[in-house]
Amino acid sequence: MEHIDAFREAADTVVDLSADFRLDSEAEYDEWYDGHSRPELLEESVYALPERNRDELSGASLIAAGGCNATATILGLAPLFDGGILDGSEQLVVDVKVGSSEGGAGSSKASSHAERSGVVRPYAPTGHRHEAEIQAEFGCETAFSAHAVDMTRGAAATCHVFPNEPVTTGDLWGAFRETYDDEPFVRLVAGGTGVYRYPEPKAVAGTNYAEVGFELDPSNERIVVFSAIDNMMKGSAGQAVHAANISCGFEETAGLDFQGLHPVGAP
Amino acid sequence: MEHIDAFREAADTVVDLSADFRLDSEAEYDEWYDGHSRPELLEESVYALPERNRDELSGASLIAAGGCNATATILGLAPLFDGGILDGSEQLVVDVKVGSSEGGAGSSKASSHAERSGVVRPYAPTGHRHEAEIQAEFGCETAFSAHAVDMTRGAAATCHVFPNEPVTTGDLWGAFRETYDDEPFVRLVAGGTGVYRYPEPKAVAGTNYAEVGFELDPSNERIVVFSAIDNMMKGSAGQAVHAANISCGFEETAGLDFQGLHPVGAP
Amino acid sequence: MEHIDAFREAADTVVDLSADFRLDSEAEYDEWYDGHSRPELLEESVYALPERNRDELSGASLIAAGGCNATATILGLAPLFDGGILDGSEQLVVDVKVGSSEGGAGSSKASSHAERSGVVRPYAPTGHRHEAEIQAEFGCETAFSAHAVDMTRGAAATCHVFPNEPVTTGDLWGAFRETYDDEPFVRLVAGGTGVYRYPEPKAVAGTNYAEVGFELDPSNERIVVFSAIDNMMKGSAGQAVHAANISCGFEETAGLDFQGLHPVGAP
Amino acid sequence: MEHIDAFREAADTVVDLSADFRLDSEAEYDEWYDGHSRPELLEESVYALPERNRDELSGASLIAAGGCNATATILGLAPLFDGGILDGSEQLVVDVKVGSSEGGAGSSKASSHAERSGVVRPYAPTGHRHEAEIQAEFGCETAFSAHAVDMTRGAAATCHVFPNEPVTTGDLWGAFRETYDDEPFVRLVAGGTGVYRYPEPKAVAGTNYAEVGFELDPSNERIVVFSAIDNMMKGSAGQAVHAANISCGFEETAGLDFQGLHPVGAP
Repeated sequence: MEHIDAFREAADTVVDLSADFRLDSEAEYDEWYDGHSRPELLEESVYALPERNRDELSGASLIAAGGCNATATILGLAPLFDGGILDGSEQLVVDVKVGSSEGGAGSSKASSHAERSGVVRPYAPTGHRHEAEIQAEFGCETAFSAHAVDMTRGAAATCHVFPNEPVTTGDLWGAFRETYDDEPFVRLVAGGTGVYRYPEPKAVAGTNYAEVGFELDPSNERIVVFSAIDNMMKGSAGQAVHAANISCGFEETAGLDFQGLHPVGAP
Repeated sequence: MEHIDAFREAADTVVDLSADFRLDSEAEYDEWYDGHSRPELLEESVYALPERNRDELSGASLIAAGGCNATATILGLAPLFDGGILDGSEQLVVDVKVGSSEGGAGSSKASSHAERSGVVRPYAPTGHRHEAEIQAEFGCETAFSAHAVDMTRGAAATCHVFPNEPVTTGDLWGAFRETYDDEPFVRLVAGGTGVYRYPEPKAVAGTNYAEVGFELDPSNERIVVFSAIDNMMKGSAGQAVHAANISCGFEETAGLDFQGLHPVGAP
Repeated sequence: MEHIDAFREAADTVVDLSADFRLDSEAEYDEWYDGHSRPELLEESVYALPERNRDELSGASLIAAGGCNATATILGLAPLFDGGILDGSEQLVVDVKVGSSEGGAGSSKASSHAERSGVVRPYAPTGHRHEAEIQAEFGCETAFSAHAVDMTRGAAATCHVFPNEPVTTGDLWGAFRETYDDEPFVRLVAGGTGVYRYPEPKAVAGTNYAEVGFELDPSNERIVVFSAIDNMMKGSAGQAVHAANISCGFEETAGLDFQGLHPVGAP
Repeated sequence: MEHIDAFREAADTVVDLSADFRLDSEAEYDEWYDGHSRPELLEESVYALPERNRDELSGASLIAAGGCNATATILGLAPLFDGGILDGSEQLVVDVKVGSSEGGAGSSKASSHAERSGVVRPYAPTGHRHEAEIQAEFGCETAFSAHAVDMTRGAAATCHVFPNEPVTTGDLWGAFRETYDDEPFVRLVAGGTGVYRYPEPKAVAGTNYAEVGFELDPSNERIVVFSAIDNMMKGSAGQAVHAANISCGFEETAGLDFQGLHPVGAP
């Protein structure tokens, strides 16, 4: 936010990868972060999760690319809200597993290889700032926890939700297809018999794809939704390019058909 | 179950590491597994999770060591039930992350190094058989999902629960201390400022210890409970030795003060 | 070799990824493998390491794609032979580190995640069959050992060689540039100040690139040569496509400008 | 070296884990390091690799624990020198693979999880300072290169040596047994049919054991020697305790019969 004027002077369209312009108001920002220096821009800026708000992005000049964990979560749950299976009154539990690149390129004791390898480490178990973005999208609270696991790239969200009315697997297929059938970067992966039956970060590594899928648990009337992205692509840089393409009227997929893989973990 | 007579003839005390004698009745067994050949023994056998049922284990001659994921989950949630913070009417969401040794020593395409490395892979997202053990312990249903992650040894349970009455962090400390203060194999890890702030499988690798901890999320009235064990020790062999020690009247910790580490992943 | 007639009937150009047609004579084959069923084809078949034998590949109808470890080794050492720095009378020590995909897609106890993770495991410490290919290329013996390490894709060869005459770093740069300056799939990486100073499998994962580099050790008159490839691409499938392109007169790089990443380890 | 007087005043026996007192003379130190502030102590200090110099350690008051990579290398090659199979005139090539804990507890970009995971990264390919210790032990030069691989604890040395006279596998077994049969912390692992046929860091993780083994390559008259230690134990802290035990006249194995595992990678 300190440099935003210089950036906007230099370019007609600015896509910010930080969290500075993701929320809509100063009050909301202050609830989750600490003091905004340019609050008057919060209303103008457009949050970018292209699958959700293409129309707003068209022609937008200040864009805030969605956060990685929020992106994974929103893409997973959206069909349930779109399809009327959830209405916001239900309890949403989101349990996210993330790779080490989410911590950025800096170094710290916690991010060193010796400490970070092989962990299943709760981090931000409550109060994670990406909750604000999910709440803004669906208008309801989320019980969100993140865990660091042993990978470099990737974020996988598992959402446990309990619809008020009974649903069938067919209802779920219908809702997911309705929401995503025309999306160039969303793949539906639900079931099957091979090794890859549900969304997995491995399957989208280096790409701008999101995988979403689900399983219905009849015994406890639960839907388990899975969503996987590469946090460095769909969760940040890829999403930014996608948003810029829409804003500028380019082909949506322009520049997004290769795999970018630095850093990569253990290939 | 096919060999149980031979085993019992050979030894006065038998601890079974399989799932054959964990449930209490043939009906319950048939609901989760496929056909029991010796159902008359189900009532006699004692489920072993020593922290929960020492008294029953004393002198027991047929013992079923608790399942790894059930052990992790039950140890995490028990203080909340013991302390009256949960009463069984609440929704319990359990999201477990497990290492590759849970799949046993056999080999399959899915368990090969190339396919299994670096995954965050939903497995048994619904209907996991260890749910039956949790249900038997607490008398209520659990929304349980497991994920394979990149480690060899270890199981970490994250339980998201929503108590009917408000609780404080002090209430939680009180409940966990009350349940575990005298336990030789349970460590309470909740918060702090170092790298290891919550239970982690890394911290208990090769040992019979369980780590349990929690975080209170005031914004959505949620308690997040964390529990970590080594599935090869506290989740199977260690638990079996512990149970045998109690059954036979030995020192409880006998034979459990070393680290056993085969297989180990990337040390 | 059992199916080679059917393959050749079906296609004008056959590129074999197995080791069946890599060696030149039945005698040589029998020394390293066990009995060839079609020895009359050994002379006809062309070994494919395009950087070394483009001319032979042009128009070839039976091509044997070079082995992964041989490819890494040959690409590393070739400039030293081309440039007259080595003449074949020197002792060549080759110490290779490989990922789990070199073992193929099958499953075994040794290749299971629990056993294979985190290893530095000597395998084929002597008598590795790829020695035969190196020997055929340079006309001299190689002291070759392979080690399994914790990655899925990749082979890295470290060659320790002791030239008879003193050389300078300038001589080495000259030799490597002379051999590879026009090659589309070879990158020279030698020194610098960042994290990536020498060839690494991570840097070529999913691609048909080979990285080669070196360091001169004046104190013991040694050249250490490093070479890294993705065994699934430059070490097999990519090399096969490259060879087919040459044989058929296509653009050499056709079909080789994307990253193929199944299986991938921990991205 | 700056604090050595204070340490020696505080304790009768000082074991230094740094490299400050490992070499014998100021000239040697200056060749490999940069300026010694207390050179007069270099002659007094005793280098500690207990399997090699127990007698000197007895009663020593200033001890320098051997470096991890030097320890692995020396333990592997020692039987060949002891048994007269090598005399120092041969070319010794040592190719070492090490875990991330060798870099210490600090953090840097290169040691961050995202950059360090899954590497086969040449580091110190020439001029590694531990060469000085190997040279001091055997009186000959070594062609030494180290590679970072994906593990946290462990160092594995592969030594390629070419004896002047033919040897048999029996000669090698004899030499290794003669040198190590009475050693409490050295295990001979050479061949067999299981998964663990040669020394491996996984097999000694958390312990003070070294594993050594070999393979004879008749085709190129080479002996390949393998040696594996945990760099945090046998390669530093364990070696220090072992040396202190000898110096003080305690039981040699005192305090060394448990597995210490922080940090551990992916257990």
